[in-house]
Amino acid sequence: MRTENPRLSWVASANSHIDFPLQNLPHGVFSPPGETPRGGVAIGDYILDMRVACEAGLFSSTAQCAAEYAAGTTLNAFFALDATERRALREELLALLDESSLHRTRMHALGDTLLRPMKSCQLHMPAKVGDYTDFYVGIHHATNVGKLFRPDNPLLPNYKYVPIGYHGRASTIDVSGAPVIRPKGQTLPPGQSEPVFGPCKRLDYELELGVWIGRGNARGEAISIDNAKNHIAGLCLLNDWSARDIQAWEYQPLGPFLSKSFATTVSPWVVTAEALDPFRCAQPPRPAGDPQPLSYLLDPTDQETGALNIELEVLLRTAAMREQNLPAQRVALSNSLNMYWTLSQLVTHHTVNGCSLQPGDLFGSGTLSGEQPDSYGSLLETTVGGKQPLTLPNGETRTFLEDGDEVILRARCHREGYASIGFGECSGIIQPAR
Amino acid sequence: MRTENPRLSWVASANSHIDFPLQNLPHGVFSPPGETPRGGVAIGDYILDMRVACEAGLFSSTAQCAAEYAAGTTLNAFFALDATERRALREELLALLDESSLHRTRMHALGDTLLRPMKSCQLHMPAKVGDYTDFYVGIHHATNVGKLFRPDNPLLPNYKYVPIGYHGRASTIDVSGAPVIRPKGQTLPPGQSEPVFGPCKRLDYELELGVWIGRGNARGEAISIDNAKNHIAGLCLLNDWSARDIQAWEYQPLGPFLSKSFATTVSPWVVTAEALDPFRCAQPPRPAGDPQPLSYLLDPTDQETGALNIELEVLLRTAAMREQNLPAQRVALSNSLNMYWTLSQLVTHHTVNGCSLQPGDLFGSGTLSGEQPDSYGSLLETTVGGKQPLTLPNGETRTFLEDGDEVILRARCHREGYASIGFGECSGIIQPAR
Repeated sequence: MRTENPRLSWVASANSHIDFPLQNLPHGVFSPPGETPRGGVAIGDYILDMRVACEAGLFSSTAQCAAEYAAGTTLNAFFALDATERRALREELLALLDESSLHRTRMHALGDTLLRPMKSCQLHMPAKVGDYTDFYVGIHHATNVGKLFRPDNPLLPNYKYVPIGYHGRASTIDVSGAPVIRPKGQTLPPGQSEPVFGPCKRLDYELELGVWIGRGNARGEAISIDNAKNHIAGLCLLNDWSARDIQAWEYQPLGPFLSKSFATTVSPWVVTAEALDPFRCAQPPRPAGDPQPLSYLLDPTDQETGALNIELEVLLRTAAMREQNLPAQRVALSNSLNMYWTLSQLVTHHTVNGCSLQPGDLFGSGTLSGEQPDSYGSLLETTVGGKQPLTLPNGETRTFLEDGDEVILRARCHREGYASIGFGECSGIIQPAR
Repeated sequence: MRTENPRLSWVASANSHIDFPLQNLPHGVFSPPGETPRGGVAIGDYILDMRVACEAGLFSSTAQCAAEYAAGTTLNAFFALDATERRALREELLALLDESSLHRTRMHALGDTLLRPMKSCQLHMPAKVGDYTDFYVGIHHATNVGKLFRPDNPLLPNYKYVPIGYHGRASTIDVSGAPVIRPKGQTLPPGQSEPVFGPCKRLDYELELGVWIGRGNARGEAISIDNAKNHIAGLCLLNDWSARDIQAWEYQPLGPFLSKSFATTVSPWVVTAEALDPFRCAQPPRPAGDPQPLSYLLDPTDQETGALNIELEVLLRTAAMREQNLPAQRVALSNSLNMYWTLSQLVTHHTVNGCSLQPGDLFGSGTLSGEQPDSYGSLLETTVGGKQPLTLPNGETRTFLEDGDEVILRARCHREGYASIGFGECSGIIQPAR
C-alpha cells in the first residue's frame, strides 16, 4: 500500500486536499448545473463525471462494467458488484488521475465536462436505501446514556455479547444539506403524568459512521465473520437526529420510533473500503473482565485488522454565528476506535438469523463518543442531559439544538507516511416545526 | 352499500365463495403457469388477469390508468393512486364480473387467458415494501405479554397515549407459502449469566393484520386524522414470526431486532379499503378510567366508523397431522376489534413527526389477541410462556413451534344482509435451522 502514497494527481487541487486527494476517490451521485443525476468520483475540488468518462471510453473492458454502474443515477448496482470488480475500477481511476497518466491529453480534450467543479453541482443520495439499521456500538455513548438512567449499572447484561441494533426508517434518510424540520410529538413534561403534544424541545444530533452494504446475501444464508468485509462497499458520515423528549416517552418497550424517524442525514461521498485499507488496525483490546465475543463473531484477521482509525468531529454553527460571520465551532472530537464491535461483526451478527442484506442497505454505527466530555457525540452527553449548557464563542449557550442551528460532521484518516483522506461534510440546519 | 349485496357473478365459483365473492375483488400479483408476473384480481376460484383485461380493452378511459397500474408486476403504482381512481376501477370490475355484465360475450371470447385457475398460479408479493412498521396495538396481547414481566402493572404508562410501534425489516417479508427457516441466535439459558449460540428453541407466530399504505405524504407534512383513511390502500394478514428466546436476550434497550427480522409472512391478496367498507364500525369505547386520545388522534368520523369487524383465525398443522391426513386445527379465533387504536390513528401518529410514508409501505397491527385464551394470537400467550402446552387432536403437544409445523392465518368479515368476504390464507411451514 505504501507505494500508493507519494502519488500525485494532475488535478492540482487534489494534492494535499483535506478530503479528496488521489488516494481517496470516493463515489457519489450528483447533478451538474441544469443536468440530470449521474455517478461521479470526488477528486480535489472537482467531480469526475463517470457518465462522461464512460462515454469517452476511458476504461478498459476489465473495468467498463463497474464504471457504468458507478455512472448510474444510484450506486446500488455498483455496490452489488464483487469487491474485485470495484477494485479493478479503482486501479484504473488511480491511473487515469495520476499526474503521469497516459491519458491526460484525451481527458483534457473533454474540456469542462469530465471534471465538474464540486461547488457548482448538486449532490444526491448515493443509493436507494432498502433497509436502514442503526447499531449502538459506541461503548462510551452507551455507558453515558445508561448512566442517566442507571448510574450504578449503565450497561445492560447483553451489551458486551450482542452488537445491539434496531431497525431505522429508510424513507427519511437524506443527503447532507437537506433541511431538518423540528419534529412534533408527544412528550411527558417533568413531574406530570399525562403527555402533551407539541414541537420537540430536546432536539439532538448523534455522531455516527454510516456503512453502505455492498453485495447482499440470500435469505437464510448468514455471512460468516471471515467473509463479512467483502459485503461492505464503503463508509460515510451519518447524523442520527434525535428528539430526546419524544424518545423518553415513547421508547418503552419496543425502542425509538418517531423520536428518530423524522430525519437522518448522510454525507454524499462513499469512501470505499479500499481507500480505507491503510487506516485499518487491530480492534482495541477489551477491558479486563469483559467476555470474549461468541465464536460466530470471532475471526483472528478481523481482530487484527478489522478496526478503523478515523477521526470524527462535530461542529456547531448557530444562526447568530452565521450572521456574525463566525466559523462553525468544534463541539466534539472523537474516533471510530470507540466502537466496541468491528464492522464485520455487525454484518455477521445482522445476518446470523438468516436475515438478507441487500446492496444499498445502510448501517449506522451508533453514536461514537469518546471517554472525555470533549469527545461526546451528542448534546445529551455533552450537556449531561441538558443540565450543563455548552457555551459558544459568541456567548450563546445550548443545551439542545435551536432553530437555525447547523450541525456539521466531519471525518478524516491520518497515518504517518500515508496521504490523509477525508469524508467531506454531513450537515443540516434545523428548521422550525410546522 | 346494501344495493351491492344481492349481486352475483357469472363466475359461478364466486357466488357464496368463502373468501372471494364479487363483493371482495382483492388485488394481487401472480404468474400463470410458465408466464411472467402481472397483477390480478381474485374472483371465486379464479384470478382475473389484469394484463389480459387491459390488452382486451375492457376498461373505459376513466378506469384505464388504474387498471394498467393494477396489471403491473408490483402494485406500488396502483397504491399511489388517489382513492377515487381505485374506486372507479372497482366499479368497472364489479360491472364486468356481475352476472348481468354487458361484456360477457367479449370476455368469454378471451377464453382461458382472462380467468386463470388460482390453484395453478404462483402468487407473489403484491408490492415492493419500502418501509415496514410493526405496531403493538392489540391491547390484550400487550397486557398478556406485559403480565409475564410485570404481573401487577402489565401496561406501561405510555400505552394508552401512544400507538406503540417500531420499525421492522422489509427485506425478509415474503408471501404466503414461503418457507420459514428456524433462526439461530444468542439466547440466555435459564439461570445462566452467559449466552449461548444456536437454533431458536421458542419459535412463535403472531396473528396480525397488515396494512398496505396507498398514497404517501411529503416529508414534514403530517397526515391529519380526518384524511388518514385515504392513505390506506388495503389490508392483508401478517404473521410476525418471533423467536422468543432470542427476543428476551436482545431486546433491551432498543427493541426486537434479530428475533423478528428472519421472516415475516403476508397473505397475497390486498383486500381493498372499499371492499371493507360494509364492515366498518365504531371504535369500541375505552374502558372506564382510560384517557381520551390526544386531539391530533381524535376525529369524530374516525371514532364512529374507523374500526373494523374482521374475524381472525390461527390454525396449526404439524408434519404428523399432514401425514395422518388430519386437517389444520384452529388454535385461536380473534377479531380486529381488539385493536386499541384505529388504522387512521396509526397513519396519523406515524406521520405526525413529519415522517414520510410511501406507496407500498406496510404496517403490522401488532398481535390481535382477544380476552380469552382461545383467542390468543401467539403461543407465548396460549401456552403461558411455554408453561401450559397445547394439545392437538392427534395427541401431540406444543409449547412453541417445531420443525415441519405449518401455521395458517385466515380472516373473514360477516355482516347480516351483506355478502361475507375473506382474506385467503397466510401460511408458512417451519424449516430446520441451517
